[in-house]
Amino acid sequence: MTENGNLHYAIVGTGAVGGYYGGLLAHAGKSVHFLLNTDYSHVTKHGLRVDSPNGDFHLKKVNTYHNVKNMPPCDVIIIALKTTHNHLLPAILPPLMAHKDTLVLTLQNGLGIEEEIATLVGANRVIGGLCFLCSNKTGPGYITHLDYGKIIMGDYYQKRSPETISKRLSILANDLNSAGIQAQTARDILKERWKKLVWNVPYNGLCTLFQTTTDKLMRHAPMKLLIRDLMKEVVLAAKSCGAIIDNKFTDEMLQTTEQMAAYKPSMLLDYEKKVELELETIYHRPIQKAAKNGFQMKKTEVIYQQLLFLNNY
Amino acid sequence: MTENGNLHYAIVGTGAVGGYYGGLLAHAGKSVHFLLNTDYSHVTKHGLRVDSPNGDFHLKKVNTYHNVKNMPPCDVIIIALKTTHNHLLPAILPPLMAHKDTLVLTLQNGLGIEEEIATLVGANRVIGGLCFLCSNKTGPGYITHLDYGKIIMGDYYQKRSPETISKRLSILANDLNSAGIQAQTARDILKERWKKLVWNVPYNGLCTLFQTTTDKLMRHAPMKLLIRDLMKEVVLAAKSCGAIIDNKFTDEMLQTTEQMAAYKPSMLLDYEKKVELELETIYHRPIQKAAKNGFQMKKTEVIYQQLLFLNNY
Repeated sequence: MTENGNLHYAIVGTGAVGGYYGGLLAHAGKSVHFLLNTDYSHVTKHGLRVDSPNGDFHLKKVNTYHNVKNMPPCDVIIIALKTTHNHLLPAILPPLMAHKDTLVLTLQNGLGIEEEIATLVGANRVIGGLCFLCSNKTGPGYITHLDYGKIIMGDYYQKRSPETISKRLSILANDLNSAGIQAQTARDILKERWKKLVWNVPYNGLCTLFQTTTDKLMRHAPMKLLIRDLMKEVVLAAKSCGAIIDNKFTDEMLQTTEQMAAYKPSMLLDYEKKVELELETIYHRPIQKAAKNGFQMKKTEVIYQQLLFLNNY
Repeated sequence: MTENGNLHYAIVGTGAVGGYYGGLLAHAGKSVHFLLNTDYSHVTKHGLRVDSPNGDFHLKKVNTYHNVKNMPPCDVIIIALKTTHNHLLPAILPPLMAHKDTLVLTLQNGLGIEEEIATLVGANRVIGGLCFLCSNKTGPGYITHLDYGKIIMGDYYQKRSPETISKRLSILANDLNSAGIQAQTARDILKERWKKLVWNVPYNGLCTLFQTTTDKLMRHAPMKLLIRDLMKEVVLAAKSCGAIIDNKFTDEMLQTTEQMAAYKPSMLLDYEKKVELELETIYHRPIQKAAKNGFQMKKTEVIYQQLLFLNNY
């Protein structure tokens, strides 16, 4: 922390997610340090632009780094890489663990993320996060925020109960809030991950397989049945892993999505950009975890195997 | 029958299937009467051409009919329409039931075909048939036979046991054989239908969904797993309906398909021609029949709902 108690942030992955949240933090005057790869030169020279319905801004001078070893000690490391790049984390994270209280907040989708990071930095440093954000990287150092932006975060516990909200998590949430980021704390991040999967498993997969938007799926009665079946399967899988999701939640998700405008899930955007799909964390791990607990996600398996075909073929 | 004991045939649907088998029968000198719709004028004027690795032939004079009421009494009515046109059968079949021994041989795919025809002509007239044929209609009155050609036929029994092979079925098989058609009799046509579904359910659906050929699917390990899972599900569904298929059969089907050249199943050809897909008989009825017997074809349901989306969207 700085002398006045401010947190220092490192942003790992300055794309649609890291660029947006890191941009908001820096715009609010926080100490933010961006690790960049392809956009390093551009952002060093031209800064970071964020267009948003909440107000556009352009950060002309940004703390940019191309090598993790040059980054200063930080209090919070925000991981905003695609999970398909998590093989880079063993090289990135250890040098950033400057002092023993450095926290790692992961804003990645799917299951098993906290476990993966815990093996690199120790479980006690890990905060799990999920973002409900609609934004795109539309150019080098240029983020277009479209809608939403909430973060749900929870302490990672290797043993699931009793779950509490730690003081450090409250401090982090407050600091994010003070930068205009809607950050909420949750007692059970695993349950939150399963709840997000209730949406991600049907819509990411089916929109990608049919290269279509959510509204087109929702207008077709048998497809809507399939979406509902997949959602219910995710709820049962969650239950087998000890995360109890209210049955009404699937209806709420269906209704919310029905009322949304035409929406392209991130997996479809990745498919269109011809980058690797996040199948491991969004499909494979949930299937594996449920199977380990005696529940077979039969319908989800079909979608997963089809996506593997689309991804590799 | 003619005075010399020859059977008179009516061919309902002169496409890739009816044109090929009807063509072979006429080429062998049998009395064959073709009911035609779009190709009526062309075939009346130019006859019927069949190209085949077994020898090309051109029937210059063909007995063609545009209206079922003008057709003569026949002994065997061969139904070779797509099942998506079965709504036409209540108008077509009754006028053709000239005498009480007229038989109806259906060469259509899927389940519930015999039941459907039995309601129109009576159960005792129905012979169920399946063809293992690779042929296409490549132009008006022009059939290109590519490979295979076997027919498996069985008497339709409303109550499933004891099943026997009737004398009339043997006579029909012999008559077809005498025209160079490889027709085999089976005691249990329902079981044969389920066995054909073991192939049709995975390959028709997945080739259509991904607009690809069988060899491309078989080269992809997770897709092959999905195909195997679907086959096993069909075997279990068949079992729930009292049709016991040997477990080895799925391995045989996988191996056979792996050794085949690039193949486009009929459903993919239909999709490419933008005609309605045979989803009712190949997917919906098997799912319904298994469900009625307490078995849910979960993976097949996914493929079915996806195909409905593709079909209607």
